[in-house]
Amino acid sequence: MEFSPLLEKMIESLRCLPGVGRKSAQRAAFHLLERDRRGAEDLAKALIAAIEHVGHCQHCRNYTEQDLCSICAHPKRSQSKLMCIVESPADLLALEQSGQFKGRYFVLFGHLSPLDGIGPEQLGLSVLEQQFQNSVVDEVVLATNPTVEGDATAHYIADLCKKYSINATRIAHGVPVGGELEYVDGTTLARSFAGRTQMP
Amino acid sequence: MEFSPLLEKMIESLRCLPGVGRKSAQRAAFHLLERDRRGAEDLAKALIAAIEHVGHCQHCRNYTEQDLCSICAHPKRSQSKLMCIVESPADLLALEQSGQFKGRYFVLFGHLSPLDGIGPEQLGLSVLEQQFQNSVVDEVVLATNPTVEGDATAHYIADLCKKYSINATRIAHGVPVGGELEYVDGTTLARSFAGRTQMP
Repeated sequence: MEFSPLLEKMIESLRCLPGVGRKSAQRAAFHLLERDRRGAEDLAKALIAAIEHVGHCQHCRNYTEQDLCSICAHPKRSQSKLMCIVESPADLLALEQSGQFKGRYFVLFGHLSPLDGIGPEQLGLSVLEQQFQNSVVDEVVLATNPTVEGDATAHYIADLCKKYSINATRIAHGVPVGGELEYVDGTTLARSFAGRTQMP
Repeated sequence: MEFSPLLEKMIESLRCLPGVGRKSAQRAAFHLLERDRRGAEDLAKALIAAIEHVGHCQHCRNYTEQDLCSICAHPKRSQSKLMCIVESPADLLALEQSGQFKGRYFVLFGHLSPLDGIGPEQLGLSVLEQQFQNSVVDEVVLATNPTVEGDATAHYIADLCKKYSINATRIAHGVPVGGELEYVDGTTLARSFAGRTQMP
């Protein structure tokens, strides 16, 4: 037995969301039909508007519905000679929320992963190289994730920087602030040792 | 810092789904924009179609976009004198999938819960009483959940049945098939004792 066609279609469609299986989709559908038809309507409209209009910023590849994102269109930040390279818009948001970085960004939307068919072209590195050629930056901060793929991507971009005599730096990896040494894994401890700094 | 307006709206709208907070909504939005714009479009269309057309069956209150659901419109089942009363469409589906029950249903969409303002009227019991008056059934199987509220609801409907001389039965509660006694809670064991049956 199945539900009525429209309800079945709704349940199946909800499964396009990540981590949503048949049961969760069913629960969501009942919730929307029973308690939040207005929310479902808003969601439908927001989805249509977003998929129709949200594209990538021409400079940094972040999501935006304009040609340039709000950071690349910012009069001061767009002139910055400092560029931070991140893997995803979520990483960019996390850095922005820390409030420390006032330069420009470049979003890779992934990391080098030849087995998955993700090479330099998929990460927009030709766009990035173009910007290096136009010498818009003089320092690149590599803020890819501290994973094997993230590190490999950072090294690849660092090599690219060398070609254009741009200074490439990597964000520090070590014990998180507030963390306890006892519970930190060995690799992180090793990196925090290797990256130790002089006490003032 | 926030994302572009349309992306922010999309993320906020996704939060109308049950159990989806800001981070999950963000993850879902990125997933849809990056990997499944087609799925997002289908979802939007399915949501609009469902909220516009899916209503309740006039007989059993289950979701349907017709006047009668597929069970109530079924030539044999609609003539059945046996009615099963469940709390939600998901319960109805579970019973249908067990393939044992061939009668008709009535969906309460909840259980009696005076503190939440859910009384007999909200559960459609006047519609149910109307059907009792028209003597369409001669046995009612109460398949509400074995919770305090579900039991209270079952008792309330059983009283209603008495008024119209309809036989009211309750589904059996006890040790689940395949379960081990050792891990079954005391209340369930007590009910499985009280509901013991004669060995053939």
